[in-house]
Amino acid sequence: MLHPRVVYVQIFTAGGTIDKVYFDAKSEYEVGEPQITEILRTSGASFQFGCEALFRKDSLELTDADRAEIARHVATSDAERVILTHGTDTMVETALAIEDALGPEPTRTVVLVGSLTPARFKSTDAEFNVGFAAAAVQTLPPGVYIAMNGRVFRPREVRKNRPANRFESLVDGVEPDAR
Amino acid sequence: MLHPRVVYVQIFTAGGTIDKVYFDAKSEYEVGEPQITEILRTSGASFQFGCEALFRKDSLELTDADRAEIARHVATSDAERVILTHGTDTMVETALAIEDALGPEPTRTVVLVGSLTPARFKSTDAEFNVGFAAAAVQTLPPGVYIAMNGRVFRPREVRKNRPANRFESLVDGVEPDAR
Amino acid sequence: MLHPRVVYVQIFTAGGTIDKVYFDAKSEYEVGEPQITEILRTSGASFQFGCEALFRKDSLELTDADRAEIARHVATSDAERVILTHGTDTMVETALAIEDALGPEPTRTVVLVGSLTPARFKSTDAEFNVGFAAAAVQTLPPGVYIAMNGRVFRPREVRKNRPANRFESLVDGVEPDAR
Amino acid sequence: MLHPRVVYVQIFTAGGTIDKVYFDAKSEYEVGEPQITEILRTSGASFQFGCEALFRKDSLELTDADRAEIARHVATSDAERVILTHGTDTMVETALAIEDALGPEPTRTVVLVGSLTPARFKSTDAEFNVGFAAAAVQTLPPGVYIAMNGRVFRPREVRKNRPANRFESLVDGVEPDAR
Repeated sequence: MLHPRVVYVQIFTAGGTIDKVYFDAKSEYEVGEPQITEILRTSGASFQFGCEALFRKDSLELTDADRAEIARHVATSDAERVILTHGTDTMVETALAIEDALGPEPTRTVVLVGSLTPARFKSTDAEFNVGFAAAAVQTLPPGVYIAMNGRVFRPREVRKNRPANRFESLVDGVEPDAR
Repeated sequence: MLHPRVVYVQIFTAGGTIDKVYFDAKSEYEVGEPQITEILRTSGASFQFGCEALFRKDSLELTDADRAEIARHVATSDAERVILTHGTDTMVETALAIEDALGPEPTRTVVLVGSLTPARFKSTDAEFNVGFAAAAVQTLPPGVYIAMNGRVFRPREVRKNRPANRFESLVDGVEPDAR
Repeated sequence: MLHPRVVYVQIFTAGGTIDKVYFDAKSEYEVGEPQITEILRTSGASFQFGCEALFRKDSLELTDADRAEIARHVATSDAERVILTHGTDTMVETALAIEDALGPEPTRTVVLVGSLTPARFKSTDAEFNVGFAAAAVQTLPPGVYIAMNGRVFRPREVRKNRPANRFESLVDGVEPDAR
Repeated sequence: MLHPRVVYVQIFTAGGTIDKVYFDAKSEYEVGEPQITEILRTSGASFQFGCEALFRKDSLELTDADRAEIARHVATSDAERVILTHGTDTMVETALAIEDALGPEPTRTVVLVGSLTPARFKSTDAEFNVGFAAAAVQTLPPGVYIAMNGRVFRPREVRKNRPANRFESLVDGVEPDAR
C-alpha cells in the first residue's frame, strides 16, 4: 500500500451558515469570508492545504449550474483529498452531484461539511465539524461523504431533519464500510 | 462486512491541558472537569458515548501505575471505539502502554487526543481536536492512534516537539494505512 | 448627601442586536432571550438588579406606541437607576421619548445601551457595553443617557452613523456635566 | 462648567490575571501582553487613549518599590483620567499608594481594574470590567477608585474576599458620593 509522505487537502468553499457574519449596518446576516482556514490555523493543523472560495451563498440559493461548477472543480482537482464547506440545507444535493461527476470508481476522498451555527458564535459546532472533516478526509477510502453531527454519512443515506436541526441517517445507523 | 447499527464511543479522561481551569483564589491553574462531553454536546454530536474520568493530572505527573490503570480500563472496555483525552507531554508513553495491553491483534480502535491550549480559552484547539478524534475513532481500523495537530499518528512514529509546541512525525509524513 | 446602602438597578429590555440569535432551521436571525442578565452573572456583578423583558424587536420595528410603553415603564419604576437594552437604530428616538416622560427634573438615572454585534458572537461589544452602562447608571446624575462606543451621550447630542456603524457626538465631544 | 471636547484616557498596566496566558510548552501560566487595548478595540470604544505597560506581574509579586513606581507614573501623567489594570490580590494596596501620591486634593480620576478570570477565557469578567472602568473613569470626580464586580469602591472601603473570589465593601454598600 502506498503511503503518501505528505498529506495535502484541497479545500473548496461554497458559503453557508459556517461563514455567516452579521452586518449591523444593514441589520442583516450575510455569508462572509471562508472561516475554515482560520479554524485550521487556530487549531494548529499541520497538514498542507490550499483553499479556493467558489461561492458565498446560502445553500438554498445555489443553482444546478452552481452545483455543476462545484462538481467540476472537485472532479478536476489534482488532490486526492478534498473538503468542501457548504450550507446544510442542500448539502445532500451537492454531494450527489459530485458523486455523479466522480463516477462509479472515484479516486479521491471528498468530504462535505458545514455548521448549524456560524463559526463566529461563541457556541458553535464549526470547529468540531472542521476537525471531524479533517480526520474523515484523511482516513476514509475514496468516495463522497457528508460529515455532520459527529457522523459520517453517505449522500444517499442521509437527510437534514430541519425541525430538529440535525442530520439523520436514512438507514438507521448503518455506517460507511470504513472498517 | 458487519455494519454496526449504532455507533458507540467509550471516552476515558486522564486530565491534561484540555481540562485546565484557572483558579484565581489560588492564583494557579488546575486540571478541572472533563471538557470533552461539553464539547460533544455543544457540537451536536449524535453518536452515542459514555464518559469515565480516570485521572485529573498534568500528564507529567502520571505514574507508570497510572498508565497501567488507564491501559487496563481501555483493554477491558466493552467498546470497540475508545477516545482517551490526555495531557500532551506523555501522551506517547500512555499510547505505548495501551498498545502493549491490547497485544499484537487489537480488536478495538483507540484514539488519544488532548489540546495545546485549554478548552476554556476563546482561542483553542480543543473543539477541533475532539472533532478530529471523533472521526478518527469511527473510521480507523483497530489499533492505537494519537490524533493531534490535525494528523493521525502511530504511537511509535510521533513525538511532541516541546519548543515548537506541536506533534511531529518521526517518519516524515508516513500515514497509518487506513486507505 | 444620602448614601444608598444597597445599589439596585432595574433593567428593561426591548430587543435589538445584542439579543440576536441565529436560527438555522429558518436560515434567519431573530431577537432571542435577553442577554444582559447572563452577562451580569458571568461577570460577577454584585449589585442587585431585576430584569423585565418588554419587547423582542429589531429597533426599526418599534412603533411609537411601543416607545410610549417603554417610557411609561421607566417613568413609573420604583428604581432610581434604570438600564434599558435596545436596538441601536432607533435608540435615540426612544431615549427622547423617555426624556419627555421623565420631565424637566428627572429623579432617576436612565442609561440606554445595546451592541453593534450580537452578544453571542465570539467577538462582540456586548459585554464591554453592558459593563460601561452598569458603571454609568451608578455614577451619573439623574437624566437620560446613551452609552455606546465607550462614551456617554445625551440623547439630543448623538446620532448613529450607520455607514460607519458607530455612535457619534453631534457636539464635537462635549460630555455630560458629570464632573 | 468646563466641557472637555475630547476625552482622553491614559492606561497603565501592571499585569495580573486579566493578562494571563497559558504556555503549554512550559505547562504553566504567565502574565502576557496587556489585553485592555485589544478589548477596547474589539468593543469599538471611540474615546482616545494611550497605553503604557509598567509591569507584567502577578500582583502578589509586586514590591513596594513597584507600587512607588506605579504611583509616580500616575501622579505625573498629563492625563486627567487614568485606568490602571492590575492583579486583584494587592489592588487595594496599590490604590492606597496612588492615593497617597495624589495627595488630599487629587486633580485626576484614577480607576483600578482587573479581572478574576483571564481575558483570554471564553467566559470571563474582563470585557465587562474594562467597560465598567471606562465609564467610571469618565464620570467619577477626581480621586482613586477600584472598579470590580460591577461596583465602584473607595480603596479604604473594600477588600478582596479571596475564598469567595470577589470584592466586597467594608462599609456595607456605601457608595462613592458621585450623585
